[in-house]
Amino acid sequence: MIEALSEAERADALDGLPEWDHDEARDAITRTIVFADFIEAFGFMTQVALIAERMNHHPEWANVYNRVDILLTTHDAGGLSPRDIEMAQAIDAIVEE
Amino acid sequence: MIEALSEAERADALDGLPEWDHDEARDAITRTIVFADFIEAFGFMTQVALIAERMNHHPEWANVYNRVDILLTTHDAGGLSPRDIEMAQAIDAIVEE
Repeated sequence: MIEALSEAERADALDGLPEWDHDEARDAITRTIVFADFIEAFGFMTQVALIAERMNHHPEWANVYNRVDILLTTHDAGGLSPRDIEMAQAIDAIVEE
Repeated sequence: MIEALSEAERADALDGLPEWDHDEARDAITRTIVFADFIEAFGFMTQVALIAERMNHHPEWANVYNRVDILLTTHDAGGLSPRDIEMAQAIDAIVEE
């Protein structure tokens, strides 16, 4: 069982993820990324998919052509957990490449 | 410019796609597919992505773990076009494999 972040941990984590918005209703973080085209968008998704499978922690996401909307939360924890922060950091690193 | 389907063509096409629902508000077709796990779901998405790029016709889709929700419509046509039907048939063929 993964534990949700405490209030202080959540605040710290969100400060470190300026590209992400906090969805308070779901205690999730969201980020929308717009790429040049579908090839870049799906290439990004493929990289994230491999990391997600390795981490055994999967995003909720949607794609329309060059746009990818991502939502991270931990169902087992009922909200944000350290896994989401780790995943968000991994996603940011891929986007920055 | 791709032309939208006529009423008769749309009715015929939908009859041939029993796994798909018609979203009348958007004149789109939708299908939800549930796989065994994320590996199968994303493997499916990868096959569809390659076909989408080859056809230059891309789905609107969302994924949560083993579930994939797909919506097909043709923005340039303002609704369903023959491309959506062709894409839906290709997706059905992949799912049946």
